Amino acid sequence: MSLLTVGSVAFDAIETPFGKTDKIIGGAGTYITISASFFTKPVKVVAVVGDDFPKEYISTLEQQGVDTEGLQIKEGEKTFFWAGKYHNDMNSRDTLVTELNVLEHFDPIVPANYQGSEYVMLGNLSPQVQSTLIERLENKPKLVVLDTMNFWMDIALEDLMKTISMVDVLSINDEEARQLSGEYSLRKAAKKIMAMGPKYLIIKKGEHGALLFHEDKVFSAPALPLEEVFDPTGAGDTFAGGFIGYLAKTDDISFDNMKKAVIYGSAMASFCVEKFGTERLLEITEADLEARVKEFEELTNF
Amino acid sequence: MSLLTVGSVAFDAIETPFGKTDKIIGGAGTYITISASFFTKPVKVVAVVGDDFPKEYISTLEQQGVDTEGLQIKEGEKTFFWAGKYHNDMNSRDTLVTELNVLEHFDPIVPANYQGSEYVMLGNLSPQVQSTLIERLENKPKLVVLDTMNFWMDIALEDLMKTISMVDVLSINDEEARQLSGEYSLRKAAKKIMAMGPKYLIIKKGEHGALLFHEDKVFSAPALPLEEVFDPTGAGDTFAGGFIGYLAKTDDISFDNMKKAVIYGSAMASFCVEKFGTERLLEITEADLEARVKEFEELTNF
Repeated sequence: MSLLTVGSVAFDAIETPFGKTDKIIGGAGTYITISASFFTKPVKVVAVVGDDFPKEYISTLEQQGVDTEGLQIKEGEKTFFWAGKYHNDMNSRDTLVTELNVLEHFDPIVPANYQGSEYVMLGNLSPQVQSTLIERLENKPKLVVLDTMNFWMDIALEDLMKTISMVDVLSINDEEARQLSGEYSLRKAAKKIMAMGPKYLIIKKGEHGALLFHEDKVFSAPALPLEEVFDPTGAGDTFAGGFIGYLAKTDDISFDNMKKAVIYGSAMASFCVEKFGTERLLEITEADLEARVKEFEELTNF
Repeated sequence: MSLLTVGSVAFDAIETPFGKTDKIIGGAGTYITISASFFTKPVKVVAVVGDDFPKEYISTLEQQGVDTEGLQIKEGEKTFFWAGKYHNDMNSRDTLVTELNVLEHFDPIVPANYQGSEYVMLGNLSPQVQSTLIERLENKPKLVVLDTMNFWMDIALEDLMKTISMVDVLSINDEEARQLSGEYSLRKAAKKIMAMGPKYLIIKKGEHGALLFHEDKVFSAPALPLEEVFDPTGAGDTFAGGFIGYLAKTDDISFDNMKKAVIYGSAMASFCVEKFGTERLLEITEADLEARVKEFEELTNF
């Protein structure tokens, strides 16, 4: 089924205890589309870059099966740039640089060819941009998934609450769920958040896996205990891309199939962290993915 | 199969955001034996109390199926007493009072009737007391499980390393696994710790569940997302009691059966936190437990 995503396509510079990168391709939209294109093609992307964004990066996306008609290239402007440094535990990081550049006035234009998309993934971005995109869709999609973060809760809560009320699935981490709901218990938090609009809630817990909530049901997905997390950048976006990619491929939005989608998303994320940036995601095969999903089965079977 | 445990039988005074207790029955040995007696009877306990310990508390243990022949009552001495206060997140606590009393010179005497026990659970105690107990067993047990904590790593590491080298299964939490191994990655930590002696390692992660390691295998057990954690005191001991109780009942120490034992232990712990102290554990029925284990199955099935 057709899949549309909006999200940043950007430059990242990453420093971890294992090394550092120059400016490499990054951004939520990049990770989401690469991950989702593993399941369904084409993945239509709405995003914006400056004229400093290398043509070969765009070719990389296209080779993965990403439809870049909705990728705006702004002449004379610069691409969004983020630089960060991870601490030794790899669970926390400092942001060293954030240059919004083209993202500051991003108008999410939806090409005519993108209309009729049945699955929509709103990658982490200003909630005002996310809701504008939904409003520009001529047909109601089958499923809209929203990923966001505490930054928008801090500076644009009203816009965020509006966007949350328009989506079917919300994906946030445990601290964000607590902040948004004012509840420490994730079960209580989930109830309050689902009352804000989304029928489904995914709570990401990093190295502890993820929870999927729907009505009174809950599913707990483990994270694969890895020997080494090399670079966590993009893991949450990769998860989201795998989640919606699997749903679009199977075209089944039952709770039981969403559980599987959470596992496939988790499996994709477990690859993402094994190398810098998108490097590992561009290497893996279908057999790699199936073997990894099998590891998740063995991990939880009793 | 016969089950022997050593651990503190004590007074606790607990304060949580939901209320506070007077001195109630507590201690690792108490939670372990009550939890284990749900699976197999009698549970033989080696412990020590003072003459201030109420007869009705001992009767409570006996009614649950605990053999108290090894419970020493020291005339003119006082029972171990711990008081603590939980913070609002229920994940951290302050110790308000620790009175060692009879525990200071505890000599773990093993009654003749206790010899030949096939399953042995060493509850959290001084590692020197734990190793003394093992040395006093005339026959090698089928399985020895050790629970300990960071306190002993800080003040008695050498004794602890000796005790660790004598057991089959070690049960500690994630921070303790990192402290003991010097590794942040739990997978790496597990390798190093299993090289210290134990063939199996359980890493408890509180609200995030538990991991069971053996050779290259790993099992991830979820925690049940609860609406409310009322009192976490004794949850880890209750887990340990359920774990070894299930193994002693089924008399099967394969990795596959240990996975089930981790789930049964987790289910027992999920009851423990629902009320103050041991209150909830004394109420539950076999049907309650089976229903809870079913919830764990539904939680992880995909």
